[in-house]
Order: sequence, then C-alpha cells, then structure tokens
Amino acid sequence: MTHPIIESLLWRHTTKKYDASKKIPEEELKVLFEAMRLSPSSINSQPWRFVVIESDEARQRMSRTFAHKYQFNQAHVFDSSQIILFAHKPRYTRDDFAKVVDRGIADKRIKQEDRDKAFAIFGFAESNTDETGDTSNWTKAQTYLALGNTLHTLARLKIDSTALEGIDADLVNEEFKKELGDYRCEVALAIGYHHPDEDYNAKLPKSRHSLNSVLVRI
Amino acid sequence: MTHPIIESLLWRHTTKKYDASKKIPEEELKVLFEAMRLSPSSINSQPWRFVVIESDEARQRMSRTFAHKYQFNQAHVFDSSQIILFAHKPRYTRDDFAKVVDRGIADKRIKQEDRDKAFAIFGFAESNTDETGDTSNWTKAQTYLALGNTLHTLARLKIDSTALEGIDADLVNEEFKKELGDYRCEVALAIGYHHPDEDYNAKLPKSRHSLNSVLVRI
Repeated sequence: MTHPIIESLLWRHTTKKYDASKKIPEEELKVLFEAMRLSPSSINSQPWRFVVIESDEARQRMSRTFAHKYQFNQAHVFDSSQIILFAHKPRYTRDDFAKVVDRGIADKRIKQEDRDKAFAIFGFAESNTDETGDTSNWTKAQTYLALGNTLHTLARLKIDSTALEGIDADLVNEEFKKELGDYRCEVALAIGYHHPDEDYNAKLPKSRHSLNSVLVRI
Repeated sequence: MTHPIIESLLWRHTTKKYDASKKIPEEELKVLFEAMRLSPSSINSQPWRFVVIESDEARQRMSRTFAHKYQFNQAHVFDSSQIILFAHKPRYTRDDFAKVVDRGIADKRIKQEDRDKAFAIFGFAESNTDETGDTSNWTKAQTYLALGNTLHTLARLKIDSTALEGIDADLVNEEFKKELGDYRCEVALAIGYHHPDEDYNAKLPKSRHSLNSVLVRI
C-alpha cells in the first residue's frame, strides 16, 4: 500500500542510538510542542504536563535517575536532542476541569452564561475516579493518547524518537518534583536523530500482527 | 503558526452529528486500518483488538447497548460510517508476547536462534502486572496510544470522528463478547462525515490550555 500516511508510519522506528551531534531546529520544536498542546482528550480534560529536558543541568539530573535500572536507556539523555517527560494527573478534580471551562470561555467556545452547564460532562471524570480519589487509569490513558498523537507528528517531521517506559519512575518523579508538581511521569520520550551506524533498530524490518488478527469487520 | 501538521490538528474536531448519507470510501478505510495496525506500543506488545461495526445487524446490536445511558451518542450508531471498538487485553501474558516474538521471526526482525533472548523485554509487562494478573492500566494506555495515532491519521484523511468514552462498557462487552473474546472495550470511535448544518461542534473554536501552562523547558 502506497500512501503518505503509511509512509510516515513505516518510516518511524524506536531509535536505539542517537547522533549526539544533531539537534532539532527550533522551528520544528515549535511545531511539535504546538501539536502536543492540540492533542485531543476525553472532555478536553488535558490532564497532562510535559517537561522538556534539554539544558546540561537538566540532562545531568535526568542521568542520575538511571542509577538503579534501565541503564541501556541512559545514553539517550545526552545523545538525544531532548527528552520529554509525559506526566498525567493522578488526582484530576473539578478544580482542574474548571480551568478547562474557563479557558473555553476565554477562547469563546463556551458562553459565560453557560459556565455551570459546562460542568455536566465532568461526570466522565467522576465515573473514572476510584474511592480514594485516584483518576490515574483515566488520566494516564489520555496522556498516552497525546503520546500517540506526538509519535505520529514526529514521523511527519522526520524526527526520530524513543518512547521510554524504561525509566525509574520513582526516581524521575523525585528528581523533577518541582517541575512535575502534582503530576506523575511514567513514560518519557527521547527525540532527535538516530546514529547513522550504531542504531541497530534502524535497519531491522518492522513487525506487526496481521490485520486479520487484530481487526474484525462485522 | 502555519504548518500542515498544525492544519491537520486544527481541522479535526469531535463530531456531534454525522451526515448519514456519506460513507467512507473503501480505499481510505484500508489506509486507516493499516495505520491502526502500524500503531506503536511498549515492547511492540500490540495488546489490542479493533472491532469495526458497519453492517445493519452490527449497528442494531450496538444501538441496544445504549439502553441505559449515554443516549446522546446513540445516533452515531446509524449516522456514522463506522463505529470501531478499541479494546485492550486486561490480562496480557507471556503467551501473548510469544505471538509478538514469533511474528517478529516471521517478519525477519528476530532471528530464530534469538527467540529466547527476545523475551528479556517481557519484564516491562511483568512490572505492569498486579498481584491478580491484571495488566489493564498498561494495556489500556497502549490502546489509547493507538487511538491517538488513529485520530491523527483521520485528520490527515479529512475523515471526521468522535472518540466515545460515552458508551455503556458493560453492555458493549456483553453484546460483542464473541468478537471481543478476552479483550475489554472501554472506548469506541465513530468515524464518518459531519452533518453540514446540525453538527454544532464544527462551528465552535477549538480550546486548549496555553502552551506555558502544560509544557516547561528546562
């Protein structure tokens, strides 16, 4: 099948070694960040925070979080162009949604007089809140939706990437406590350009289950 | 900012009323399904199943699942071109991953003699399995990643869509038990073309938090 969308998705791969000499141009980062901001989410909840690690100091801090495990991902900290922490809100509340509503009013999407009515859909958050007030299962899913949108965006920009569940989440959340606030990071994303010789995954064929085994039309 | 990627993301919106007279051409569905199949996931786990509802009989069955709630979404069942159930595997096991490895061997991504070694990364699944064997939090997140990839794909194809958490998950899983098997659906996706007059959301401006409030560069 030949189609620009399929070309994008066949082009991308999980980069295993970055070329430290290449950094992403600022104008492309701007497109990427704007695309991330525009990610869709249930009831427009946007229950995420993105922390972009790029300074030498921030890289040193990120590097320290590999003290105990996943050291095979540590080189990305210095070789990639940026590492982005994708964090979700474990306790998404009515106050969080009020910010969405008020932003909707500012953007002229919601009329001021309809403010109260706009909270009706907050029931979706409530039905995803457990007895302890935890919304992680729902907000983490939304944040992965944003990650899926981001990976597709990167493929269109021809920027390489590595989604990293291989991080020490506890250490990352401790080290970046100030920047993450009450958001929790369980996945990061390295972005940049793959090493021309040493990225073994660039040369391997992509593998996926057959369409028949994952999709049924009824 | 003017860029094809930003144009795609500004173009898309959550459709609230479909034009029942328009259906998606088969060749575009093929691109869509292939893009869904190519979605990335942690350790290439692909812990998903997609059930595409399009026949009159399947639509009748889907319609019945709105008996108790979310009736405001019921019209999409008949007006949209297709409704796709996005389902994740609540218990992802070593046997599931064995299918990924064997497919990798068939696709010449993994050498037969490296089959055992290929299971090393299964630790990511294990560390996301709770004491009861439940992997939902992890597999659901991967399935939302595929949903994010799908929504971006649809925007590129200029096909409208509605991500539907507003489904009665228990009734949907009961009604489509045969097709879903041991996968669980908590989100569906209506696709098609929005009604030229009656889709109020097509006319409203998009609203998102400001970049500064969701992203920090350090």
